[in-house]
Amino acid sequence: MNPLNALDIIAEKRDGAELSSEEIKFFVRSITNGSIPDYQASAWLMAVYIRGMTQRETLDLTLAMRDSGAVIDLSDLPGVPLDKHSTGGVGDKTTLVVVPLLAAAGIPILKMSGRGLGFSGGTIDKLGSIPGFRTDLSIAQAKAQARNIGAALIAQSLELAPADKILYDLRNLTATVESIPLIASSIMSKKLAAGGRRIMLDVKVGQGAFMKTRARAEELAHALIAIGNAAGVPTSALLTRMDEPLGWTVGNALEVQEAILTLQNDSATEPHFRALCLRLAAHAMQSAEIMSTEAEAQRKAEELLNGGAGAAKFAEIIAAQGGPDNLDAVLAALPQTTNRVDIAATAEGYVAAIDAEAVGKLAVELGAGRVHKKDVIDPAVGITFHYKTGSAVKKGDVLATLHLRAGETTSNTAFATQLHAAFTISPLPPHSTEADLVISVIA
Amino acid sequence: MNPLNALDIIAEKRDGAELSSEEIKFFVRSITNGSIPDYQASAWLMAVYIRGMTQRETLDLTLAMRDSGAVIDLSDLPGVPLDKHSTGGVGDKTTLVVVPLLAAAGIPILKMSGRGLGFSGGTIDKLGSIPGFRTDLSIAQAKAQARNIGAALIAQSLELAPADKILYDLRNLTATVESIPLIASSIMSKKLAAGGRRIMLDVKVGQGAFMKTRARAEELAHALIAIGNAAGVPTSALLTRMDEPLGWTVGNALEVQEAILTLQNDSATEPHFRALCLRLAAHAMQSAEIMSTEAEAQRKAEELLNGGAGAAKFAEIIAAQGGPDNLDAVLAALPQTTNRVDIAATAEGYVAAIDAEAVGKLAVELGAGRVHKKDVIDPAVGITFHYKTGSAVKKGDVLATLHLRAGETTSNTAFATQLHAAFTISPLPPHSTEADLVISVIA
Repeated sequence: MNPLNALDIIAEKRDGAELSSEEIKFFVRSITNGSIPDYQASAWLMAVYIRGMTQRETLDLTLAMRDSGAVIDLSDLPGVPLDKHSTGGVGDKTTLVVVPLLAAAGIPILKMSGRGLGFSGGTIDKLGSIPGFRTDLSIAQAKAQARNIGAALIAQSLELAPADKILYDLRNLTATVESIPLIASSIMSKKLAAGGRRIMLDVKVGQGAFMKTRARAEELAHALIAIGNAAGVPTSALLTRMDEPLGWTVGNALEVQEAILTLQNDSATEPHFRALCLRLAAHAMQSAEIMSTEAEAQRKAEELLNGGAGAAKFAEIIAAQGGPDNLDAVLAALPQTTNRVDIAATAEGYVAAIDAEAVGKLAVELGAGRVHKKDVIDPAVGITFHYKTGSAVKKGDVLATLHLRAGETTSNTAFATQLHAAFTISPLPPHSTEADLVISVIA
Repeated sequence: MNPLNALDIIAEKRDGAELSSEEIKFFVRSITNGSIPDYQASAWLMAVYIRGMTQRETLDLTLAMRDSGAVIDLSDLPGVPLDKHSTGGVGDKTTLVVVPLLAAAGIPILKMSGRGLGFSGGTIDKLGSIPGFRTDLSIAQAKAQARNIGAALIAQSLELAPADKILYDLRNLTATVESIPLIASSIMSKKLAAGGRRIMLDVKVGQGAFMKTRARAEELAHALIAIGNAAGVPTSALLTRMDEPLGWTVGNALEVQEAILTLQNDSATEPHFRALCLRLAAHAMQSAEIMSTEAEAQRKAEELLNGGAGAAKFAEIIAAQGGPDNLDAVLAALPQTTNRVDIAATAEGYVAAIDAEAVGKLAVELGAGRVHKKDVIDPAVGITFHYKTGSAVKKGDVLATLHLRAGETTSNTAFATQLHAAFTISPLPPHSTEADLVISVIA
């Protein structure tokens, strides 16, 4: 048998063979130390994209990428450290509500998040809109904070899963992103390196998610769960709808504001978003074995939210990471823009749909997100919705408000036209409006 | 419609779509000017390897690569300039016999050849064994020589088809070599850029060729012919056997010597090799419309060989390119080694097979070829066969002679064992020995 080499491994995957554990380990190690150059890695990625990977190969790839860098040990934290991951959506500020609720419940969380790229926002950008808030804590600092106050919210560390970073960047440049084995191994390598002892996944499905169909989302969920469980970290997933933007707002400071108001049990809270946060929190409490029944867990989550424990915990996290020392001060400090444009219904009817992907792309154009990694975002810009799907509207009702950059040079009319186009107004009420964003729980 | 971009083109081919002419032109232009980096090119190559290309796409790829650099115009040469290409074999010195015969017949040839890499030898290395012989003529010099004396034999110019050079190098590094559309477009882009008005292909098939089966060789031949004809250059192919090494010798100076002796109509000429050269020359004369019937062309080729016109023309070419000024002087000047080892038959029987690929690999180990581009070759080393397939041998008969480097450090026994292993000696005569190396002519 020949010594392991890149060409043979590429050729085997090219021809649809199953790679051995040793071959996958060798390939990932060689990518990490640079002895396999990017042009060989990208040929291999294309072969993997087209030929697929077995569950065993996907697990081996995940573990090899996990082991390519630092692996955090959280076993000395009190309780059962949990990690959460969302596959990404438009207006998805769930982490900002769920993490404080869980920390308040005694589940320690060292949560690493990414920056936004494309139509889906990033938690780190949202937190970055809070003046003074530091997301660049070291792993040791974040772990100490998670021990002291129950949670830390930091940017993805480059020390974790460097092989994934190399392959992830290449995938974006070689049209090899949309592969279940590659997506699943990428997500799980980082989660497994981050040290949580339970993993809860929010797998978004729908028109504003990366997975457009339920079948595809379930396929991804099963792949993710299989990896986590095989790696010894009990993992479960909630399949949740992402057809219209989540909550009332899209945009970084706007979403932080909405998360705070939700934790403060504000009367204007968007009910579907609130319910989703509570379901996720309740599910996490069952996973971490704080609560044994779903009903009990649900009651506990509501109690933490209604009683203000979640809000207090969020205030504590923000203050610990350099932000203002109470939530009113945070709300007052969040950047805002006075350059606002309302868009109004041109006819009476019902909101039949709000195209989340169109809204996400519009938000990027407004300056809330990035097309390229180096794009600079404006924390104040975004969109506020005043009606969601299923609502009856009269002609002239303000459907949504654009929050534009001060001195925005693009025609406001162009943005207003785009936002209008994202709404479908129907003369008849929708057949059904699903009250629950959670489609199913997969464990 | 979006402006053309690499990612969309990669994704389309990834999903098995047919690329437009504009997309292929854009991709090749961008590879050439470096705006598409190698990691994107290699992802695309893998997608092409797995998904294939239509005949139209393959033609477009060929033409785009042809047009990525200089395109030689030979239309002002007298007669019908012809080009010849062999897909490569072991002991294949055919060019050294056929080109002089054709030049003697009045068919001008500006023949560019490559250096050897892997088990298949390269014409440029063979010519390089002639002391003083220059293969680095400029295109203008080579064209002037082809006008004056009918032929020039030079190294592949880097000015021609630079896009092919980039993709060819990447294919070797990304396990994307063995793809008919990629092989065919690579060969034909260089041939079409080289300006010949007729193209004759020698497509090798068998155990010592890149195409191991007749079906695969025919597939390649048809792809090559379709491209040439569609590009306005009448193209035809001879499918020829490459199961055992061609002729008596493998090794650079040894093969030049054999070619000269063949042109000199030496009585020890290997008859199958001689017949192949005559068939190729005759076919080329028909292609270039010097002769109208096969029988007439065959007679003419034999006349040029038997009468010494071919030998005289080879002497003229060698002298014009800096070598000794007559063939006897060339023969005397060719480097030789005195470190020779005979291998003998260990039993009586018949030579049932000589494994050409094993012989080719052994020749590389002896120093006649390269594993890596930068390896330095020794012109004197190689192998001489004394019996070919079908011959009866007695125990103790010398089957072949190893020509080893002076002071070779590897055990001669190891080389002798390898050469022995390449022979299959059978107690019974082979079922049939095909007298004719030409399997079929495809036009």
